[in-house]
Amino acid sequence: MSLVTWVPGVDAGHPYGVHNLPYGAVSTGDGASRLVVRIGDVALDLARACERLLPELAPLVSEPVLNPLLAEPATTWRRLRVALRSWLTDESVRPVVEPLLAPIGRTHLPFSLGDYVDFYASEHHASAIGRIFRPNSPPLPENWKHLPIGYHGRSGTVVVSGTPIARPHGQRRVGDGVEVGPSLRLDIEAEVGFVLGAGTRLGEPVALADAAEHVFGVCLVNDWSARDLQAWEYVPLGPFLGKSFATSVSPWVVPLDAFHNARTPPPPRNVPLASYLDDAALPPWGLDIALEVELNGTVVSRPPFPAMYWTAAQMLAHMTVNGASIRPGDLFASGTVSGPEPDQAGSLMELSHAGVTSSFLEDGDEVVIRGGCPPPQAARS
Amino acid sequence: MSLVTWVPGVDAGHPYGVHNLPYGAVSTGDGASRLVVRIGDVALDLARACERLLPELAPLVSEPVLNPLLAEPATTWRRLRVALRSWLTDESVRPVVEPLLAPIGRTHLPFSLGDYVDFYASEHHASAIGRIFRPNSPPLPENWKHLPIGYHGRSGTVVVSGTPIARPHGQRRVGDGVEVGPSLRLDIEAEVGFVLGAGTRLGEPVALADAAEHVFGVCLVNDWSARDLQAWEYVPLGPFLGKSFATSVSPWVVPLDAFHNARTPPPPRNVPLASYLDDAALPPWGLDIALEVELNGTVVSRPPFPAMYWTAAQMLAHMTVNGASIRPGDLFASGTVSGPEPDQAGSLMELSHAGVTSSFLEDGDEVVIRGGCPPPQAARS
Repeated sequence: MSLVTWVPGVDAGHPYGVHNLPYGAVSTGDGASRLVVRIGDVALDLARACERLLPELAPLVSEPVLNPLLAEPATTWRRLRVALRSWLTDESVRPVVEPLLAPIGRTHLPFSLGDYVDFYASEHHASAIGRIFRPNSPPLPENWKHLPIGYHGRSGTVVVSGTPIARPHGQRRVGDGVEVGPSLRLDIEAEVGFVLGAGTRLGEPVALADAAEHVFGVCLVNDWSARDLQAWEYVPLGPFLGKSFATSVSPWVVPLDAFHNARTPPPPRNVPLASYLDDAALPPWGLDIALEVELNGTVVSRPPFPAMYWTAAQMLAHMTVNGASIRPGDLFASGTVSGPEPDQAGSLMELSHAGVTSSFLEDGDEVVIRGGCPPPQAARS
Repeated sequence: MSLVTWVPGVDAGHPYGVHNLPYGAVSTGDGASRLVVRIGDVALDLARACERLLPELAPLVSEPVLNPLLAEPATTWRRLRVALRSWLTDESVRPVVEPLLAPIGRTHLPFSLGDYVDFYASEHHASAIGRIFRPNSPPLPENWKHLPIGYHGRSGTVVVSGTPIARPHGQRRVGDGVEVGPSLRLDIEAEVGFVLGAGTRLGEPVALADAAEHVFGVCLVNDWSARDLQAWEYVPLGPFLGKSFATSVSPWVVPLDAFHNARTPPPPRNVPLASYLDDAALPPWGLDIALEVELNGTVVSRPPFPAMYWTAAQMLAHMTVNGASIRPGDLFASGTVSGPEPDQAGSLMELSHAGVTSSFLEDGDEVVIRGGCPPPQAARS
């Protein structure tokens, strides 16, 4: 199987080349949406392609969401991906497949969310926040290096990237009193998200070594945050209204298998890990994803995902060690991705504290978060 | 319309009399389930009753979950309830309805959950916890009387009452180290839950005065809690694995309108409220529900719901003031219901600290939480 597609204009180094093939959902003419796979700047109609070339899997992709496919074991996901790569590189099926390619148009979330969990897995971010908020205490909470700290977010307000975000209202502390009004400290958090499939039953933890059987794909996440609401509300039960007004997710979910060449060891651990989190003897789960945060057309930060202390596999193992089950369509995100340098932070709170940006979001601001991996080896050769 | 039903053995004072009529779902012979309404100790097949007597609404109740009905405006909920009361009290339709009554059998959750939010609305509980954990600080966090503190829980592990709960595993702090194993401090939290319908769009807060248009019904909740896991993990982002392994919900959802005679003013407020939470000029949203917690056949506590500082309407107004939308099937719970007396606490942590019970849950323990309102006026006459 060649890694060169017959799709015009998509060379081996194209970010949406045949090594990527993310899943998404696009508007149809009639107000509904359908599942697609992106290649280059066009989208392949997934249901119609399967009907013609892999009818056995067509029922799994005929709805506008990936959930029926997500409910299948990972072997089914791999089978579909292998087929897609073959169809898009094999000239002999081009006459069947090419008529099913179309411009992308408006995108939708390609999965129906179960639970949404957000972690806090960047040591650089957690330390920076600690230094800002608690200058006289150790920057990291004492549990931070023992477990990936996380909390549940609001899945009903997860929206596809491009959805306008209204400035949230709420309470903030002013002196000894309380004021209610629009947030004055509206922030972003650039994160990487993981879409789960192959659900489990209550009482069945997902072992570190089995994570790839449950992580379907990877997306980008912006965990919009109202810092003034959050600061007043979060003791003792954690963030609530400061986060729950909206979370944006990229329209493209990249299959985990597309990261085959981007796996990289996480940073060294300097605290011994509980056995269910100890990944020393396992294939590495760090992912070599470079993020880029653009504010009103200017790149303000380049957060490096390989700098994250905790991996997605560790987050999943921790999230389920208590016996909690997972459902197809569950989403968890890494928490703000921040690197060691001032211009590598994934939030405006950090960037403005370091003088890289001037402040929080103004009305009308546009935020773009991009992510990419180094070109695949085949593209280099 | 009489308040006396023709259903044999159900007098006007029966807790499942015609003033109650909770919705539920029961097993059918073929492994599936269907929606029912409970009267006395039998269940009315909701879809078949509607097909025969109110066919317009039959499509809303033909699935095994209430969500299609929940998606309708509250006027539709009221229309169905009025019809049900009429069918069960009018002798002339008895020949049509009586054949649709059947023993209850195995129950299921009658709604598909969207988001699950848990509050912390009992001053007695929050103060007791504060005194136990932070003996040298004020018992309530400084934000406590300004807003109903809440957080998102895991909706995928909400189960119907009667589901066996496995003791969760996880990390706990032991000295300066960490141990991993089964929780040694497994607790209950007796709560009252609220099932939402008539969803809203992003950016549309639910005003206090509109709460009854979105609160479909009321259920009982046991927020199982692993105190040792929770204590180690919850700083700074709140409870996670200490709660996410399971939450039990009663099989019966009582329509809000059934509480017409049980509305009662909440306790006096001694801190001025933000306008979106100020309920002084509105009909009272306190609910006169008496809870009872039974451990292995012995009643250990009688938590009084009218003692809750924050009302369900305030919780809903707060949860949405930032613009967060709600979906049909969202659930929020009150947090542990505890009264001022030692034997009125809704958690074993409080009960055992006060000497009412000896400790936390042992393997094999059975917990029953009951709730009831004073008999309706018609029953007293």
